[in-house]
Amino acid sequence: MSKENLNEKIVSLCANRGIIFPSAEIYGGVAGFFDYGPVGVTLKNRIRSFWRSEFIIKMNSIYEIESSIILPRIVWEASGHLEGFTDVLVECKKCQTQYRADHLIQDTLKIATDGKSFEELSEILIKNTIKCPNCKGELASTQKFNLMFKTHIGAAKQSVNEAFLRPETAQAMFIDFKRIQQTMRASLPFGIAQIGRSYRNEISPRNFLFRLREFEHLEIEFFVHPAGKDDLPDELWAKVKDLQVAILSIPQQEKEEEAKLMKASEILEQRIFSCKWLLYWTLISYDWLVRVGLDPSKLRLRQHMLNERAHYAADCWDIEFQYSFGWKELQGIADRTDYDLKKHSKFSKKELNIHLTEENIKVVPHVIEPSWGLERVIQALLESAYVEEKERTLFKFNSYIAPFQIAVFPLMKNREEIVERSKEITTNLKQFNFQILYDEKSSIGRRYRRVDEIGVPFAVTIDFDTLEDNTVTVRDRDSMEQERVPIKNLAEMFQKRLSFI
Amino acid sequence: MSKENLNEKIVSLCANRGIIFPSAEIYGGVAGFFDYGPVGVTLKNRIRSFWRSEFIIKMNSIYEIESSIILPRIVWEASGHLEGFTDVLVECKKCQTQYRADHLIQDTLKIATDGKSFEELSEILIKNTIKCPNCKGELASTQKFNLMFKTHIGAAKQSVNEAFLRPETAQAMFIDFKRIQQTMRASLPFGIAQIGRSYRNEISPRNFLFRLREFEHLEIEFFVHPAGKDDLPDELWAKVKDLQVAILSIPQQEKEEEAKLMKASEILEQRIFSCKWLLYWTLISYDWLVRVGLDPSKLRLRQHMLNERAHYAADCWDIEFQYSFGWKELQGIADRTDYDLKKHSKFSKKELNIHLTEENIKVVPHVIEPSWGLERVIQALLESAYVEEKERTLFKFNSYIAPFQIAVFPLMKNREEIVERSKEITTNLKQFNFQILYDEKSSIGRRYRRVDEIGVPFAVTIDFDTLEDNTVTVRDRDSMEQERVPIKNLAEMFQKRLSFI
Repeated sequence: MSKENLNEKIVSLCANRGIIFPSAEIYGGVAGFFDYGPVGVTLKNRIRSFWRSEFIIKMNSIYEIESSIILPRIVWEASGHLEGFTDVLVECKKCQTQYRADHLIQDTLKIATDGKSFEELSEILIKNTIKCPNCKGELASTQKFNLMFKTHIGAAKQSVNEAFLRPETAQAMFIDFKRIQQTMRASLPFGIAQIGRSYRNEISPRNFLFRLREFEHLEIEFFVHPAGKDDLPDELWAKVKDLQVAILSIPQQEKEEEAKLMKASEILEQRIFSCKWLLYWTLISYDWLVRVGLDPSKLRLRQHMLNERAHYAADCWDIEFQYSFGWKELQGIADRTDYDLKKHSKFSKKELNIHLTEENIKVVPHVIEPSWGLERVIQALLESAYVEEKERTLFKFNSYIAPFQIAVFPLMKNREEIVERSKEITTNLKQFNFQILYDEKSSIGRRYRRVDEIGVPFAVTIDFDTLEDNTVTVRDRDSMEQERVPIKNLAEMFQKRLSFI
Repeated sequence: MSKENLNEKIVSLCANRGIIFPSAEIYGGVAGFFDYGPVGVTLKNRIRSFWRSEFIIKMNSIYEIESSIILPRIVWEASGHLEGFTDVLVECKKCQTQYRADHLIQDTLKIATDGKSFEELSEILIKNTIKCPNCKGELASTQKFNLMFKTHIGAAKQSVNEAFLRPETAQAMFIDFKRIQQTMRASLPFGIAQIGRSYRNEISPRNFLFRLREFEHLEIEFFVHPAGKDDLPDELWAKVKDLQVAILSIPQQEKEEEAKLMKASEILEQRIFSCKWLLYWTLISYDWLVRVGLDPSKLRLRQHMLNERAHYAADCWDIEFQYSFGWKELQGIADRTDYDLKKHSKFSKKELNIHLTEENIKVVPHVIEPSWGLERVIQALLESAYVEEKERTLFKFNSYIAPFQIAVFPLMKNREEIVERSKEITTNLKQFNFQILYDEKSSIGRRYRRVDEIGVPFAVTIDFDTLEDNTVTVRDRDSMEQERVPIKNLAEMFQKRLSFI
């Protein structure tokens, strides 16, 4: 199966099974917006829960917040987004089609454009006399286009009422930093985490879930003492020290080398990362992605080149996934230094620092930020879990990530005792909060295929023997093996097999 | 404690403990927007989970979706929101302060304005020569103000690019109706559910969490056969038939009577609701609210008067709560008929109906819609759970709704073995996904007060005896009773006491 095919097949399966499909599709849809059906929502919920469990509940000193998505203009002045969160836009003079300049150059000239400035992109377009791919018309001059969605709070349409949908959840964590630090009585190091939607008015949304206009972020701002960026506790290093990951550092990229497998301890020794906390957050993020179910052979860590690194970052890494459309960023991990806290402190005239009582000094912490795009995780997971076998297509989701967990099938729908017993078993299992798909329509074989297709790990079939001996058939999605299990053991068995704790 | 006091105290406790506080507060905040700190987020998460568990997972044929929040203009033309989702705005000619006309009339003349039209409100303002409460200036003429936040998708600022943040999650469920019905192979009756944020550009946000500009909806669109609106299965009626609720029907309101307690069976017999499914959804919603922890003596069901009912609704009820600022809507339950599906069908030119194979006819289902405002549930819960005792203030949250579930305290922080043991117990309990607050600072008494204040149901204290006999003290928030429990029994004990399943 070719790579292009893989994405097409996933897009089509997702639509056909109501997993993920275009928003407002009866009106023709809008590029960059998708809706999630029952399977898709539950997949999202499982990933969110698994993330919350591993990065908040089980960790120490990570505090979750939920901020508003609409934030007033001043926040984005302070953060620099109003000035700098732009892409280069170019429009066809003839047909008015709009293009993102770097994408247009990539697609037309097949050259990389990472880190190219507005001036550089404009020059390339002119030098190569690139025309509109749509109508061959002449292109107008390039312009900077701010990617934030703008709206107004209140009735007046004045700049003082301007507000923007957040393009990242991070800024609210800087704004709320002091409130959280004080009310949770947190001392350094500690983190603030947030799960929620972000908005980017992309010029050219593309690649299914990869580049969207409305999507979800999972972000942590981890605050460390500026002098303690290498002070990682031993018990945390122990969690990642045996990992082995594919690495692509700046020197490797300069020499046009391939990514190479390295042990965590080697990476540490060679000081490839700006600090040990940055390395830790990168490795623990990588480990989590593998446990979600991403194919590790398609993951690598790539360091940002100096010209693509944000001006405030001391170091920045991407966890990249080899999507069917190429190696692309799935998650970013940045050493943001004290840039954001200082900027908000300046604009709000509030002190955003921590008073260290023992030394009696005030310190502005540095920030390590791991930032995941939930939809990019989902895209990578769908590509990793999709399997075609001779007679069936399936998503091999990990049992604790699978959306629907158990299918319940009466062998035949016209035998009342069997149907009744099946419904009774469904109701009982639902008491344990298992997400269950009950289905009595069509043959058992077809029902198995249907639940394989949406990755249900277990199917329970109720048959004539059930009525005699109170046992059922439990069929495993991956091995297709069947075992006979007493009804009274089902709940406990599934609790064990479906749990990640 | 006076009622005004109650809300003030809750607002201040929520800020002081970082539970809920104004968004962008370092910039002075923006009316109608709030952020949630660790306790607040977790409270929200528990309510969401409990809702999902009771209304989706444990029910049959309720399908959850997550749609995009930004939807294009045509959706809101079809739904009627572009034309009709307005409030009446009046501005002071002198100081430019803007008021919602009905609020201004209520506050100034102390009269009810429910269901009053644009013309009626305008007339009242003129007749009573109402002035600006702020500067006594003259008011300009009234105008209709659309409450939807507007933005543009893409670079062009044309009406074809106009899009709006949804003011309710419902419309996406009508738009996606056919996709969900087909892919889930659903037959009538079935429901589509959604949890997510909604946006209303309120002229005058007020009453803490009650009237917000950014908030969260929990909504179900339940589709029934137009001829089957009374066909409620017996096993569902059995779940609600013994409930007793305070009722305020249209005739009672016309006669200016008080709400009166009625049994479910009485309500059914007297045919006060337009159909049995509407009654069921109202009662099961009421029951859920009580199980969340709302004070039942402050809940009543109030039927919409004809002049306040949406033009498409066959019947509509509010579940009202007696907030500290009066009886107000917490949840609406409406019989929306086939209005929405027909409108979207007309605008999209797509068939939004169900083919009943046996009768070989196509039917446009009717819709029963229970719609909760999550923040209104939280406001009512905070007011219900807030208790002042002689020596402490506490939130008596139900154990399965409480944000942080267990506090772990080493008796003293300078005894290494005790601290070590406490951390070990914390780590072990975290493996079961309990949300734990570890605290070693200040006296045990003060630590108890602090966790009472945020409603933590159980506190575990590790002391010198623990080192000898492997037991700990478990203290109950409400009774303040303490019991000695072996460490090895803790996880199982808490799983039982903290679960709602």
